[in-house]
Amino acid sequence: MTLPRVGVFDSGVGGLTVLHAMAAQIQAHYLYFGDTARLPYGTKSAETVARYATGAARYLEAQGIDLLVIACNSATALALPKIEQAVRVPVIGVVEPGARVASEVSETRSAIVIATDATVGSHAYREALQGKGMQVYEKACPLLVPLVEEGWIDHPVTERVAQIYLGEAAAAAPQQADVLLLACTHYPLLTPLLRRITPAHMKIVDSAESTAGAVRSVVESTQRGRAQDAAQDHRSFRFFATDSVEKFKMLATRFLGRQVDRVEHVDLGG
Amino acid sequence: MTLPRVGVFDSGVGGLTVLHAMAAQIQAHYLYFGDTARLPYGTKSAETVARYATGAARYLEAQGIDLLVIACNSATALALPKIEQAVRVPVIGVVEPGARVASEVSETRSAIVIATDATVGSHAYREALQGKGMQVYEKACPLLVPLVEEGWIDHPVTERVAQIYLGEAAAAAPQQADVLLLACTHYPLLTPLLRRITPAHMKIVDSAESTAGAVRSVVESTQRGRAQDAAQDHRSFRFFATDSVEKFKMLATRFLGRQVDRVEHVDLGG
Repeated sequence: MTLPRVGVFDSGVGGLTVLHAMAAQIQAHYLYFGDTARLPYGTKSAETVARYATGAARYLEAQGIDLLVIACNSATALALPKIEQAVRVPVIGVVEPGARVASEVSETRSAIVIATDATVGSHAYREALQGKGMQVYEKACPLLVPLVEEGWIDHPVTERVAQIYLGEAAAAAPQQADVLLLACTHYPLLTPLLRRITPAHMKIVDSAESTAGAVRSVVESTQRGRAQDAAQDHRSFRFFATDSVEKFKMLATRFLGRQVDRVEHVDLGG
Repeated sequence: MTLPRVGVFDSGVGGLTVLHAMAAQIQAHYLYFGDTARLPYGTKSAETVARYATGAARYLEAQGIDLLVIACNSATALALPKIEQAVRVPVIGVVEPGARVASEVSETRSAIVIATDATVGSHAYREALQGKGMQVYEKACPLLVPLVEEGWIDHPVTERVAQIYLGEAAAAAPQQADVLLLACTHYPLLTPLLRRITPAHMKIVDSAESTAGAVRSVVESTQRGRAQDAAQDHRSFRFFATDSVEKFKMLATRFLGRQVDRVEHVDLGG
């Protein structure tokens, strides 16, 4: 048998944290597509995001995938149903798994969600968590993505910025929140820093790790009954980007914690 | 007679600092176009930027303008000749005026240019300044735009970040640099903060103010000989944006220092 082929789609490099979490626990061939020429999705209309995301999803399907992971909060929030209609393979978004894990670990039934402006504006996490009977306070933290992309992962400036955001969230949130949900693909890189400045009673849940868990469940259920002779196979990675492959390589190496040598350029038009 | 009609084009709200500088010294009807749905331009190819910018330029021309200001460093660096070909009105970019003023005020013939990653990558300012016999050190400061957009104009975090960037630039630059050129439309909002942390011998030149000076020269030369009965007229502003008009309004009010009540939505396609 062959390993499953998992497509991963994101507007940029952030989804590589989801790929990183999956690669740590799932043997698969991974095809990662970063629509770097058309990011950010967060400022675009739902129609535009759906058009871009379905184009990328079909491109990955044409490469031959068994499963598609939408590792992009904006695309998940704005276009998941349209992506599901556009391809024949199962599609897993990044919102529901994060909300599910947050709900599972919360005792007080209350969470603080930190994310980009666009994700907070979509209220996708609020809806998912309220659907599980939880109280939610959403806090936009627009500086955290640029700080991560600048490489200031464990920098005093980033710690100060995170303290300001979390302080504002704590002041405004339901007092009993016991979960901090990292609802942006860039934030897992800040987990050690955030753990340091977050009260000990708060559990930190991240959507990347949660999504990897959901993907593993699907892969294991579809592979059940097949011969598990994966030792004959080799896990592999292919990377596609719509903009500069050099910038993608540099960031990808940081996000993945492994050298990314080859990125294939794809042009999907305006 | 009527006041001149000045079109101002930018990928987003940053060009409003150029509009602000012009409005302070030039009586005109201003038409500002922010291509907010397709920003950032800095990560896109020269062909894509040229296509977007010429589309916006033609849109402004169709509204009736006498002069077009490209208040966007990426569009100026990557597409100025193509924009000039696409419209019949005179076009003024933002790079040459900034470089000219920097050259005029420098005694040591050496400047530090701070800008976004994309502008530094284009080396448009380096070429313009070297063409005037100056030495240049270009420093990318990617966190300054998000800090300005977060509204942290005079915030301790922003001061710390600017100190880090300017410290790195000073360590790497020709020692005798006596000009700090703000080569990003967002940076004029940081001028008081930057003045505080920059050595007294360094002059701060910003492209927005420099471009306003260049536009005033053109307007005055074309109006010479006409009756200067502008008191009969009223200066006015119209704003066009390709994405959310609400977000544009909020940022525009901050950037312009005046209330922006009405923004017209324009769809120029993907």
